[in-house]
Amino acid sequence: MTSPERLTSKISLAEWTASNKRSALQDMLVVSARSKVLSFALGLPAAELFPTARLSQAAAHVLATDECALQYGPPFQPLKTHVVALMQARGVTCREEQVFLTAGAQQGLSLLVRLLLDPGGTVLLEEKVYTGFQQALHPYQPHILTVPTDLQTGMDVAAVEELLKSGASPSLIYSVTDGNNPLAVSMELEKRRRLAELAREYRVPVIEDDPYGFLYYEDTCLPPLRAFDDEWVFYVGTFSKILAPALRTGWLVVPESLTGHLAIIKEATDIDMSSLTQRVISAYLDTGDLPAHLQTLRSQYRERLDAMTGALEAYFPAGTRWHRPTNGLFIWVELPGEVDSAALLQTTLKTEKVAFLPGHAFNVTPDDGARNCIRLNFTNSTVEQIQEGMALLGRAVKSRLCRAAAEPR
Amino acid sequence: MTSPERLTSKISLAEWTASNKRSALQDMLVVSARSKVLSFALGLPAAELFPTARLSQAAAHVLATDECALQYGPPFQPLKTHVVALMQARGVTCREEQVFLTAGAQQGLSLLVRLLLDPGGTVLLEEKVYTGFQQALHPYQPHILTVPTDLQTGMDVAAVEELLKSGASPSLIYSVTDGNNPLAVSMELEKRRRLAELAREYRVPVIEDDPYGFLYYEDTCLPPLRAFDDEWVFYVGTFSKILAPALRTGWLVVPESLTGHLAIIKEATDIDMSSLTQRVISAYLDTGDLPAHLQTLRSQYRERLDAMTGALEAYFPAGTRWHRPTNGLFIWVELPGEVDSAALLQTTLKTEKVAFLPGHAFNVTPDDGARNCIRLNFTNSTVEQIQEGMALLGRAVKSRLCRAAAEPR
Repeated sequence: MTSPERLTSKISLAEWTASNKRSALQDMLVVSARSKVLSFALGLPAAELFPTARLSQAAAHVLATDECALQYGPPFQPLKTHVVALMQARGVTCREEQVFLTAGAQQGLSLLVRLLLDPGGTVLLEEKVYTGFQQALHPYQPHILTVPTDLQTGMDVAAVEELLKSGASPSLIYSVTDGNNPLAVSMELEKRRRLAELAREYRVPVIEDDPYGFLYYEDTCLPPLRAFDDEWVFYVGTFSKILAPALRTGWLVVPESLTGHLAIIKEATDIDMSSLTQRVISAYLDTGDLPAHLQTLRSQYRERLDAMTGALEAYFPAGTRWHRPTNGLFIWVELPGEVDSAALLQTTLKTEKVAFLPGHAFNVTPDDGARNCIRLNFTNSTVEQIQEGMALLGRAVKSRLCRAAAEPR
Repeated sequence: MTSPERLTSKISLAEWTASNKRSALQDMLVVSARSKVLSFALGLPAAELFPTARLSQAAAHVLATDECALQYGPPFQPLKTHVVALMQARGVTCREEQVFLTAGAQQGLSLLVRLLLDPGGTVLLEEKVYTGFQQALHPYQPHILTVPTDLQTGMDVAAVEELLKSGASPSLIYSVTDGNNPLAVSMELEKRRRLAELAREYRVPVIEDDPYGFLYYEDTCLPPLRAFDDEWVFYVGTFSKILAPALRTGWLVVPESLTGHLAIIKEATDIDMSSLTQRVISAYLDTGDLPAHLQTLRSQYRERLDAMTGALEAYFPAGTRWHRPTNGLFIWVELPGEVDSAALLQTTLKTEKVAFLPGHAFNVTPDDGARNCIRLNFTNSTVEQIQEGMALLGRAVKSRLCRAAAEPR
């Protein structure tokens, strides 16, 4: 039997795969599956809050009554109608003809990249970006332009303007406008308006990735970029964080003229949406239970967020900095400069059995700082787990600091 | 409001999209959804034979007992164990580490193309190919080499050898070895053996697309190419045709060394498999009901196949030619040379309300003949519908022939 290493070298793969790296997130998914690790690493919603019984009822009903539920089929129109109403609640006016259903937000991102980006093309990103979007770009080996992000007001839109003015012509700009992943910031209103204007003025599509728009922890939430421009902002939504990830269902809101192209790309990718899942979600939404469910999610997640910021204050050393997020699943924490978060993780996984993601895992340019930053998820642990895990983590940070201070200069 | 046409011209899309064409199959899916059309057009399994009640029980059980069922999660190992057993039944020995789960066979094809093919690379295909695979290739704008297919013995493997010998170095060869789509032929044993040898000798991976291997209508079925080589044949399987398409679940059997790359590509495409669907299928397979279900499918589909070949004999003009398929969902029919199948379809859709796919829809090179050929599906209509629809279709063909004969030369 040939060894795997030898085999890989024999089979000629596409060139871009030479720079393939295992995903830190997938590794963490495996680590987190080990029950004894307290994990703040991944962007998982709380499984105990899923509306499981209601979804089970919906599935039983659909399977008993709809003979198309298990067959191939075109997109399920009633679900598009529901999405239009959801978008309205999100502050966006759109039509069913602009809604394109996808197997989750990641597929939406991946289809849009295929639609917009030529191999070797140019993209405009923040300096730290959701790794899934980086992975979607990777096969195209794009030229990447970056702009900084202010941790209180979001993407540096003036820097975007500067780049566009100076002649940069990216095929797309990527924005997680609310509850940025990993930086946990929501963009301020004036920047939203300006970014949408720039998109139109310079004819550059903005992919607006909005998994967290409905998960806000203040009284209200700002409208997404898509509310400011209906031609140049391509909105990506998902049921993963507001219902359940295993439904693998999301949506795009795009100019109607693009849905034909997207249908062709989607068909080449995986033929079509699951007829069953679309109908189950639609049946669940028919009951009108979603607004109350979202209310529950927001209030439960807010308690967990409070517990985590409280623990940061209580257990972490002076010099630890963070901003309380208004949306989403994460807190972005800057530890005192002496702490190397990757080394910290190695220790805490082994000793404290606590997991998080080192900030530099999200760097677009590998050496682009954030060595002392970490991303913490607060939605997939109970308040008790947060208190326990954060106390352990805070102690580990402090102990690294003491050791660093004790080392000879 | 800008018109869609104007909008498309403003937004700059990836270059390959310029040659995007609407899919004939998706158009047909819409046509077929109109209840009054008797459709032999699409590769749909029979919805009335889906094990709906059993799948519904499995879903209720999984949702009531497995707290991971709606969350993100790594591939579900018990399903891989089932796939290994299924492959054994198919005549293939493999290990769980070689099984990679996908959102249906189309995703398997699409992931493999991304893994193997560089933009502008070379591929080796038959002259008529499943349109979904052509769509998966299209964004890469490959150089396409073709070989003919014998309607009784399958792909011209001697022509493959000729090409490879003369220095062609394709990134992949594509084969629907059993129940070829659209040509409905299963490759003879000696050719299988030889094609697998050539793959190894010339180090060219063969993507073996096997949606129909379990749907055989003789007493037995030949083993797939993968049974003859475990390094150079990449097997693509699916539950769509043996359980139900809406489960959107298939699998690859590939060298273990490739599964890491595939996991990265899959994550970039749509993160992961549905935890729920994997568990539902696994729970269904746990019951041991599948072999009896496959028996039912084969016997029901064989009756429909008999009805369709009987109708071809009874209602179609002399000079109509076909071979009875041993596997799959289709019959490939060559009508007398004067009949233009595209024009025929326009008529029968309107007048007889009968649908099929013109043979040239599958041409890799647009002008590559088959103008008088049609692909007929026999699995998604009852025996009565087949008799009715085929009588209408046969009459329409005859009437076109009479008109052609009456036209002045």
